[in-house]
Amino acid sequence: MAVYKLTYLNLPALAEPIRFLLSYLEIDFEDIRYEREEWPSVKPTMPFGKIPVLEIDGKVLNQSTALCRYLSKKAGLAGSDDWESLLIDITLDNFNDFREAFRTHIIFVSEESKAEKYVTLINEIIPLYMNKFENIVSENDGYFVNGKLSCADIYFAAIIDFFSYLGKVDLLENRPKLQALKKKIYEIPQIKSWIAKRPAFSYAWSNDN
Amino acid sequence: MAVYKLTYLNLPALAEPIRFLLSYLEIDFEDIRYEREEWPSVKPTMPFGKIPVLEIDGKVLNQSTALCRYLSKKAGLAGSDDWESLLIDITLDNFNDFREAFRTHIIFVSEESKAEKYVTLINEIIPLYMNKFENIVSENDGYFVNGKLSCADIYFAAIIDFFSYLGKVDLLENRPKLQALKKKIYEIPQIKSWIAKRPAFSYAWSNDN
Repeated sequence: MAVYKLTYLNLPALAEPIRFLLSYLEIDFEDIRYEREEWPSVKPTMPFGKIPVLEIDGKVLNQSTALCRYLSKKAGLAGSDDWESLLIDITLDNFNDFREAFRTHIIFVSEESKAEKYVTLINEIIPLYMNKFENIVSENDGYFVNGKLSCADIYFAAIIDFFSYLGKVDLLENRPKLQALKKKIYEIPQIKSWIAKRPAFSYAWSNDN
Repeated sequence: MAVYKLTYLNLPALAEPIRFLLSYLEIDFEDIRYEREEWPSVKPTMPFGKIPVLEIDGKVLNQSTALCRYLSKKAGLAGSDDWESLLIDITLDNFNDFREAFRTHIIFVSEESKAEKYVTLINEIIPLYMNKFENIVSENDGYFVNGKLSCADIYFAAIIDFFSYLGKVDLLENRPKLQALKKKIYEIPQIKSWIAKRPAFSYAWSNDN
């Protein structure tokens, strides 16, 4: 049996969709988590200095979306034909663009443009993406693609709370279709059991926290 | 026969790998190019306000990497098994991370950190990525993955000159394996004929330009 080792920070973020998919597949994995202060010494040992990294039988692999796609194929969640796979891939990269917007509006900003960028994120970018996501799921019988469970749904459910945490706003508020989708994923027995045992992370996104 | 319409700016950049792949497949496509000043009025009509967008038989599709993967499957260039597809997907997203570094070090920078960020790009990020790319191609018989032509090679050859243009530096200088790979791709008859007929773009990357 192949040996899986996942390396990331002690955070959900980009590693959590991989953890969800490994759990869905009932694959045991070593869940290596570095604290932020340890990262600078680990960084040079990682491919392109980035994580998450998944080691499969000693082969060191980076790029979380590529890894999710690979694991999804094993789970039958990567599309039933090339067209459906395309629609799933587009959805995953839309999530990645949305994530990138948090980086360019919260992380890569100068002190003086910080407030303005945050307003753009909250008033323009978040409604643009989240309302489209809500509509897509509404039009696809409760899932992102073709009315059935795919990698896109699991990826979304695994990462959305971290986006809320970054943006300090509940992204699912008043978006019932997305709330229902997340709930459905969380109730999948293997995912439920992963959530019950995973290390705690404080997801609080109120501005008061 | 399916009808293909590609929408982008009058630039190579993210659309060029799609144009290379459509040309490789000998698929005729409408190559719609907006000038920068036209973009603000077009933006709201595009999915998530982004381009390139490929329309296939009236279906409007965004996300260039997903589209390249889809076209590559038609061309037999997306990997011969799930493992090889994973390695190709990792390579494509490494290119995307590299591209993102240009954005976060040239575009999303404040006036006062501009010079410092450019130095980091030139002295740290470019050597990190480009030397690794050179080594990977050296270790894989002149290609990015498993010693044979894949989507990754075509994507790289199509986009690398634009990265040089953004960074104002010849990224292929002193990197003979990558030079040879680009040359090999440019000599594929369908690609050669695309390059001969595509609209001119001034790729000059000297600091004097």
